Amino acid sequence: MATQSVDPRAGTPFGPTLADTDAAALDAVIRGAAAAAPEWAATTRVARAAALTAVADRLDAASEMLVALADLETGLGVGRLTGEVARTAFQLRMFATLLGDSGYLPILVDPAVAGSPPQGRPELRRLLVPLGPVAVFGASNFPFAFSVAGGDTASALAAGCPVVVKAHPAHPQLSEAVAEQVSAGLAGAGAPAGTFALVRGFEAGRTLVVDARIRAVAFTGSYEAGRALFDLAAARAEPIPFYGELGSVNPVFVTPAAALRGSALAAAYLDSLTAGAGQFCTNPSVLVVPKGSGLLDEIVNSASGRPAGVFLHEGVATHYRKRLADLVGIPGARLALAPEDTEDAGYRAPLALVALDADAALRDVDAFQVECFGPAGVVVEYEHEAQALAIADSMHGCLVATIHGEPVEPFAGQLVERLIRITGRIVWNDWPTGVAVSPAQHHGGPHPSTMNSLHTSIGGAAVDRFVRPVVLQSLPTTLIPSVGRI
Amino acid sequence: MATQSVDPRAGTPFGPTLADTDAAALDAVIRGAAAAAPEWAATTRVARAAALTAVADRLDAASEMLVALADLETGLGVGRLTGEVARTAFQLRMFATLLGDSGYLPILVDPAVAGSPPQGRPELRRLLVPLGPVAVFGASNFPFAFSVAGGDTASALAAGCPVVVKAHPAHPQLSEAVAEQVSAGLAGAGAPAGTFALVRGFEAGRTLVVDARIRAVAFTGSYEAGRALFDLAAARAEPIPFYGELGSVNPVFVTPAAALRGSALAAAYLDSLTAGAGQFCTNPSVLVVPKGSGLLDEIVNSASGRPAGVFLHEGVATHYRKRLADLVGIPGARLALAPEDTEDAGYRAPLALVALDADAALRDVDAFQVECFGPAGVVVEYEHEAQALAIADSMHGCLVATIHGEPVEPFAGQLVERLIRITGRIVWNDWPTGVAVSPAQHHGGPHPSTMNSLHTSIGGAAVDRFVRPVVLQSLPTTLIPSVGRI
Repeated sequence: MATQSVDPRAGTPFGPTLADTDAAALDAVIRGAAAAAPEWAATTRVARAAALTAVADRLDAASEMLVALADLETGLGVGRLTGEVARTAFQLRMFATLLGDSGYLPILVDPAVAGSPPQGRPELRRLLVPLGPVAVFGASNFPFAFSVAGGDTASALAAGCPVVVKAHPAHPQLSEAVAEQVSAGLAGAGAPAGTFALVRGFEAGRTLVVDARIRAVAFTGSYEAGRALFDLAAARAEPIPFYGELGSVNPVFVTPAAALRGSALAAAYLDSLTAGAGQFCTNPSVLVVPKGSGLLDEIVNSASGRPAGVFLHEGVATHYRKRLADLVGIPGARLALAPEDTEDAGYRAPLALVALDADAALRDVDAFQVECFGPAGVVVEYEHEAQALAIADSMHGCLVATIHGEPVEPFAGQLVERLIRITGRIVWNDWPTGVAVSPAQHHGGPHPSTMNSLHTSIGGAAVDRFVRPVVLQSLPTTLIPSVGRI
Repeated sequence: MATQSVDPRAGTPFGPTLADTDAAALDAVIRGAAAAAPEWAATTRVARAAALTAVADRLDAASEMLVALADLETGLGVGRLTGEVARTAFQLRMFATLLGDSGYLPILVDPAVAGSPPQGRPELRRLLVPLGPVAVFGASNFPFAFSVAGGDTASALAAGCPVVVKAHPAHPQLSEAVAEQVSAGLAGAGAPAGTFALVRGFEAGRTLVVDARIRAVAFTGSYEAGRALFDLAAARAEPIPFYGELGSVNPVFVTPAAALRGSALAAAYLDSLTAGAGQFCTNPSVLVVPKGSGLLDEIVNSASGRPAGVFLHEGVATHYRKRLADLVGIPGARLALAPEDTEDAGYRAPLALVALDADAALRDVDAFQVECFGPAGVVVEYEHEAQALAIADSMHGCLVATIHGEPVEPFAGQLVERLIRITGRIVWNDWPTGVAVSPAQHHGGPHPSTMNSLHTSIGGAAVDRFVRPVVLQSLPTTLIPSVGRI
């Protein structure tokens, strides 16, 4: 098998045909990663930070070239992609900065206490060691931030783990180009050969997950693909952690007070809904608004005439139409804004809005929680706050839930109380798209939005996925390895 | 099905026959736990700490009665069991104390930064919320510390999760008696009904793992049982975290310098090997000693005449003989001390020693790493340090590895470097049995010693298994729920 780039604006292939990584080459890559693991694990935090910074510098320096290539392969636009490279470099530098803080990946020491147990105890020094080679599966919708040099790669490298990335077939040339920058940055900073590698092809990805030398998997993508790989990881003779950031249906609740914001709210909602042609895992998929507030009309009016974006690839386009039909088929639902049909070539991503009353939504709470990846909004109108709260209670696990309201409304507090149970992030008076890269950030949530709600793929804690504790009991100072010294 | 106590010293049943929890009763228990979950999650840390302390006080007050019952069911002896109750109460109080520290289960705040992303960001407040009802499967070998009121229960309650314990059939009456103390302690401290429950029976345990309302499982026991339950947890429509602390073959390395300690070392080794009739997951299963040091002879001499202990139940006794035969069957192995046959009733646990040369061990590195649960020691003699290092490299994942040596020996440093890759704890000049209950402790290790090497079942971090992060983005102070306030 092989991969070729496709221009999503035209629907036509271009550029070289890149062959899948064959079994022998893949084995050599994994062998290289396993061989590099002890050396990379023993690298000082200062040296790892320098290596991450070197990769960030390379991405910044090559930004223009990389963005041009990414735009050809993804159709996401130069503006958005330029910002995404900056964000990706910023993220690498965040981990580099955090590695300079002794409170990060901390070494904890319980001093010895004289006496017999349970009060008495020996000295215990708890440190964190890397798991070993990590397989990273990037996503198509963030060709920089959640791909070859994205958060999973950055955090695994920061943890001291070699990384093998399985290239996403929707941006094959960009994957190669970014991998070159990562490899050059790491090599220039003295990282051992084998610390990073890129492989291609479905079969290579599958083999990575089941290979005994791979010690963890980080995945961003669809539920179906993520679940299939999770099942492989769990069925191994030696199961390994599988961190899957999967699809998510993210609710936005508008209180009666916030609904008075009218057209401004409507416009901001549509901006968030259509950003990146709606191809965000944090897309505000379900908007819950007061009936009779006129907000639905404002939204429909504001939506008409917005130019269609471009989908990343044919699969997204096909899936979008299918899922949209499912939503429209919900009893009581109506197509408030039909997706424009155009004669344009390529994978057009027209905005669509589906409206239904809260009663209709509550009759089958699974039906409206269908991820329609793209710029499709489900607008649910509630007559009573109790209906909106019932919607909140019914939501599946999601990455983010949003409230537009006023602090004085008791309803807002009731929403917080419920949403905290089903989501990984609650946004107040803003929009869920655009996840800040910040030490305390959490990008995760209960199933089905991830396969492990304890962990995050953005923020300082992302590194925790790739380390395990070891306690050194009464070990003399001279014998403590460098990884255990404060 | 039903359970009755068996006196392991006589091999005879006694006491009431306790019926398994039937499907309707189990459903009521799980419904109760799910109903209690939001209220228990909303309980303040101070109130949770008070509840844990109340349980500890009850265990202490009832210690004499509980120990007498435990001794009848387990044969572990009054001295050991009295210490174990103290340790179990100490552990509950440790979590209570930690809950009083704001650095524990911390709330992290990234203040807002003006400007556009990636530098600019909203305020983010990261807090930790409990997962919901946790199923706990206790072990037979620690009827207090790893059973009904043990570390898994204590840490899940500390996290704010209701707990449903599946009683171990080897101490059914004790399980009931401890559960009464836990329930009374929690109720007296104002915990909601449903915060804790005990169920009985194989089928009840299986159902707990697959019930959608159960949000995590903590298990201590054999690899086979743990793996079967892990597979069930992973195959759910909504997989849940499964924390299994399973069997472990724990190596002890004696350097040439330490071998000079001769008879003192031999006696201390045998004390550790035979503690609790060898029924510890931290048992020093494999002792690696210099050939020609005379240490093996010292051990065999010191071992002769030690009185046999008593196994917990018939299953352990049967398994022990079978696994011992497997070890003796390794080409090149010899039975250095045969287990004494006695006419005594009950499940006698006679000491046994199997000796083999390093070359023989290295010819099939899986063969000598068979967990022979009980007081059986494998003594491997090495002629060259390189052989001992090869043994270290060959070890499967284990809970603990031990070194007896002198700090000035380079060999000791080489052992540390290797053992850190395969274990969760490295003990210096002491013995692996007797795990301190301490904030920084780690009781875990790579597969097959656990199903998730990132986590611990002893120590302050045990609570991390049962919480997930939620970020509140720009949420007004008045809307932050109590769990998110510092």
